[in-house]
Amino acid sequence: MPRSIELLDSTLRDGAQAEGISFSVNDKLEIARALDALGVAYIEAGNPASNPKEPAFFAQANALRLANAKLCAFGSTRRKNTTATEDQSCAALLAANTPTVSVFGKCSPLHVSEILRTTPEENLRMIEDTCRFFAANGREVLFDAEHFFDGYKSDASYAMECLAAAARGSARVLCLCETNGGAFPWEAEAVTRVVCQAFPGVAVGIHAHNDGDMATAISCAAVQAGASHVQGTLLGFGERIGNAALCAITPNLQLKLGYSCLPADKLEQLVPTAMRIASVANVTIPKNAPFVGASAFAHKAGMHADGVMKNAGSFEHIDPAAVGNRRRFLISEVAGKAAVLRRARRLFPELPEDSPAAAQILATLKEKEFEGYSYEGADASFDLLIRHCLKGLPAFFALVSYKVLDELPYDNRGATATIKIKVGGQLKIAAAEGDGPVNALDLALREALAAFYPQLAAVQLLDYKVRIIESTVGTGTKVRVLITSGDGETQWTTVGVSHDIIEASWGALVDAVSHKLLKGATEKC
Amino acid sequence: MPRSIELLDSTLRDGAQAEGISFSVNDKLEIARALDALGVAYIEAGNPASNPKEPAFFAQANALRLANAKLCAFGSTRRKNTTATEDQSCAALLAANTPTVSVFGKCSPLHVSEILRTTPEENLRMIEDTCRFFAANGREVLFDAEHFFDGYKSDASYAMECLAAAARGSARVLCLCETNGGAFPWEAEAVTRVVCQAFPGVAVGIHAHNDGDMATAISCAAVQAGASHVQGTLLGFGERIGNAALCAITPNLQLKLGYSCLPADKLEQLVPTAMRIASVANVTIPKNAPFVGASAFAHKAGMHADGVMKNAGSFEHIDPAAVGNRRRFLISEVAGKAAVLRRARRLFPELPEDSPAAAQILATLKEKEFEGYSYEGADASFDLLIRHCLKGLPAFFALVSYKVLDELPYDNRGATATIKIKVGGQLKIAAAEGDGPVNALDLALREALAAFYPQLAAVQLLDYKVRIIESTVGTGTKVRVLITSGDGETQWTTVGVSHDIIEASWGALVDAVSHKLLKGATEKC
Repeated sequence: MPRSIELLDSTLRDGAQAEGISFSVNDKLEIARALDALGVAYIEAGNPASNPKEPAFFAQANALRLANAKLCAFGSTRRKNTTATEDQSCAALLAANTPTVSVFGKCSPLHVSEILRTTPEENLRMIEDTCRFFAANGREVLFDAEHFFDGYKSDASYAMECLAAAARGSARVLCLCETNGGAFPWEAEAVTRVVCQAFPGVAVGIHAHNDGDMATAISCAAVQAGASHVQGTLLGFGERIGNAALCAITPNLQLKLGYSCLPADKLEQLVPTAMRIASVANVTIPKNAPFVGASAFAHKAGMHADGVMKNAGSFEHIDPAAVGNRRRFLISEVAGKAAVLRRARRLFPELPEDSPAAAQILATLKEKEFEGYSYEGADASFDLLIRHCLKGLPAFFALVSYKVLDELPYDNRGATATIKIKVGGQLKIAAAEGDGPVNALDLALREALAAFYPQLAAVQLLDYKVRIIESTVGTGTKVRVLITSGDGETQWTTVGVSHDIIEASWGALVDAVSHKLLKGATEKC
Repeated sequence: MPRSIELLDSTLRDGAQAEGISFSVNDKLEIARALDALGVAYIEAGNPASNPKEPAFFAQANALRLANAKLCAFGSTRRKNTTATEDQSCAALLAANTPTVSVFGKCSPLHVSEILRTTPEENLRMIEDTCRFFAANGREVLFDAEHFFDGYKSDASYAMECLAAAARGSARVLCLCETNGGAFPWEAEAVTRVVCQAFPGVAVGIHAHNDGDMATAISCAAVQAGASHVQGTLLGFGERIGNAALCAITPNLQLKLGYSCLPADKLEQLVPTAMRIASVANVTIPKNAPFVGASAFAHKAGMHADGVMKNAGSFEHIDPAAVGNRRRFLISEVAGKAAVLRRARRLFPELPEDSPAAAQILATLKEKEFEGYSYEGADASFDLLIRHCLKGLPAFFALVSYKVLDELPYDNRGATATIKIKVGGQLKIAAAEGDGPVNALDLALREALAAFYPQLAAVQLLDYKVRIIESTVGTGTKVRVLITSGDGETQWTTVGVSHDIIEASWGALVDAVSHKLLKGATEKC
C-alpha cells in the first residue's frame, strides 16, 4: 500500500503573486475546476482579507461542487494584542466559508521582532489562538510555518515552539515553509525528519520556493523524511522564481518513489491540465518544463533517437504517456490519430474507427499546425475544423471585403472599419469605429450581422490574446490570436493565424460567430 | 582555503542539441569568448567527427587566445574491434588540436550489448585504448561515463570497471553522467561518494540533465560527496529538458557552500554573460530563471516588499548584486529613486544626488507605468525618458499624420500605410505596403526618413513582441509592444503602449529611430 501524499495547489493564491500573472474571477473558477478534475486534495484559492473582490469570488467558488478537492482560504494569524474574534482579517477568512483554512505565522524570533514588532511569547499566542479560533468554528486548519527553515537555523527551539503552539490550537497540518527559496534538499530533509519525530500525531507539510533551483528536490526530500502534505502550484507560478511546481513533484513522487499523490488514472491528465491552466493564465508552458514541456521527450535525430528506438530508458526517465506527454522525434513527428478520433466522436459518436474522415482531420490538423495554428485552448475552432472535414459547415455568411483604417491623429476613435458581407443572396454593408483596429472590425461585423442573427446580440468578447509565433523576421512575423467569447451561458475560445494581426483576429472572430450560430442551429433541430 | 571546483561549459556541444538552438561559427566563437571572460575552466566546443564544418571551427577557436578556459573537443571511444590509431573519429578529435579532449564511453552492460552490440570486455578495452591514445598524444583527457548512474544501478561492479579502464588509460577526470536525467540528488550523492573513495588519485566529475527537475540539486550533491569537476551549460541548454544550468549551480556552490568555481570578481558577471549568450542564441532568458531571471529578485508590493525593506534575507536567498542581478519592486509606489538615479548617472555622470531632475524622472516613470509602460527590457526607451526629463530630446522629426489601411481581400500585400512627417521645416510624404499594418507603417516611416537620415538604412527590426496588459474588456484592451532593433553593432529595445496596437507599435518605432539618431549625434560631438 503506497503512502498517500496530499497535494495543495496554490496557483490561485501564491501563484497570483507571480510577475505578469493576474486572474479574473472567471479565470479563477476555471482553474479551480481544472485542478479539481485532476484530483488535488486542496485548492488554496486566495486571501479574503487582501482584496475587496475576494469575498465575492469565494461565494461563487463554494458553489462549484468540487468532486475531489477541498477549497481553502488563506490568511495570517491575528494581529498582536487582540483576539481572533475581534480581528478583521480572521473575520474575513471565516466569512469565506471554506471547509479548510491556511493560517500563516512567523517562526523565527528575528521576524517576530523585526517584521511583527512584538514579543516571542505574543507570537506563540497569536499562532495558537488563531488556529483554535478556526478549529472551534468547524474549520480544518493548516498551519503555514513561514520562514521555518531559516527560523530553525537561527533558533531551533523557538521554531519548534511555534509548531507546538499551532498543534495545541488543533492545526491538522504543520506545513514547513522554505520561504526565501535558498535551502538545499539535504537541509530540508534533516529538519523535516526532526519535526516528524517531534509531532508524531500531526501531518507535516512542505512548501518550497525555487530561488535556488531546488524546489522539486526539496519537496521530494521532505516527503522522504516523512512529510505527507506538499504545497506548490501546478506550473510553478509564484513570486520571484516561483513556487515548487506540482507538475514536476507529483510524477517524481508517484512514478519513481511509489507514493500516491493523485488517483491512479489522473496522472496522465497532467499535461492537458497544465495546458488548460497555462491557457487561462495566458502564458506558454516553456518547452523545457520538466515532464510537461513540449521538449521533455523530444529527441534530435542521430544517436539519441537511435538509442531511444533501441531502448527507451536510455534517454527517457519515464514513459511520456504516464503524464499525458508524448515522445517526439524532431525531424518527423508522430501525431495522435487516436486522440483526434476520440475528440471527433464527441461530436459524431457514430464515427467508425477506420473512417477515412479521421485521417483527413489529422491531415488538416497537421497542415494548420504547420501554418502556426494551435488548438490547445481553442476548442471551438477545433470543433469547427472537425465539422468542416466531416460534414461541411453551413454558410452563415460570406465576407466580400473589409477595410480597416487606423490613423493618427484622429478625432473620435483611432480606427474605422467598413465591412461588406453576403447573407443568403443579400449584400450588407456596415461600418464602425473602435479604440483599435480589431475592436472596430469586431463592431462592424456585429453591426452587419445584427438584422440576420439577433442571437448574436448576447455574444460578448471576454478575452483577447496575441502571441507572436516566430520572432525572427521583425514586424513580418506571424501572430496567433485567441479570442474567448461568451453568451451568458457558455464560453468558447477560437483561434486565428496570419502575418497580419488584423487578419488573424478576423479568423478568430469568424469562428467565434460561427460557433454561436451553429449552437443555435443544432439546438433548434 | 575553499575547495576549488572546475566548471566545464558544454553550451557549444550538448547545448546545441536543444530544440530550437543552432549556432553559426561566429556565434560559437562569440559564446566561447564570453565564457572565457566569465572564467570557466573548460569550454567543450563540439564533436569534430559529427559535422564537416567542425574542423574549420576548431581551427578558428584555437586562435582565440583564451585567457582562462581550455578548449575541449568531444568524441566517442574508438569503434569495436579496431585501434584508436585507425579510428576515423579519434583522428578527427586529435586533428581538432585542442589541449583537452572529452571521451565518452558506455558504462552499463545493457548499453554495451544493446547499443554498441559488443562484449563487456571489448568495451573496457575501447575505453582504456582511447584514453591512452589521447594522453600519449599530449592531450588532457576527461572521461565522460555515459549512463553511469543507471549503469551503476544495474551492475555496479561493471560500471566501476569502466572507470578503472579510463583511469588506467590516464584520464585525468572521471565524469559521472546522469544521462537520462531521472536520478534523485541523494542517489547521485551516494554513488559519487563511492567513486571518490575508489579513485582517490583521480578527479571525479558530475554531468547531469534536468528531466526530473533535479540537475542543480544533483550537481551540488555530487560536489558535497567529493566531485571537483562540474559539467553543464550556462543557461541549461541541452537535449530534451536541458543540461544542468551552470548559472544556477555556480552561485549555489560559491555563495552558499563556500566552494570556489569562478574567480572572486567574476561571479557578478553571471547575469551579463547569460544575457550575452542568450542574445547570441536568439532566446530570451525566462523571467523565472533561478539567479539570472528578471523576476529572480522581483517583489510585488505589500508584505513581501515590506519584509525585504526591513530585512532583505527574509525574501531573498542571496544578495542580487553578487550575481549581477538586481532587486525590483514591481509596483511603482515603492520604486527606487536610488535605482533611477544610478541609471540616470550612466548617461549624465555629473547629476547630483539631490537633483530635482531625479524626482521628476521618477514621477514620469510612475505616470508611464500607470499607463501600462514597462521599461524592463526596454532600456533604450528608458534612456530616452531620462534624456527627455533632463535635457529634452532633439526634434529629429515630427509626425503630421499616418493612415494605415488593412483590407481583405487584397491584391499584393494586405496593408498599406501613408505617412506625413516634418523634418526641420520640410514636409515629407511616403507610403509603403506590408504583410501587416505594423510592417507597412515601419516601412513607410523609413521611406520618409531615408533622405534625411541615411544612417537609418543600417537599422533592422530584430524582434517584435506584443503583450496584452489588461485582458478584461475584449478587443478594447491595452497592448504593450516591445521592438528590438539592431544596426549590426548594437541592439536596443523600445516600448510603446496604447489601446490601439498600431499606435503602440508606432511609439516603439519612434523610440527605436530616435535611439539610433541620438547615437549618431553624440558620436559626432
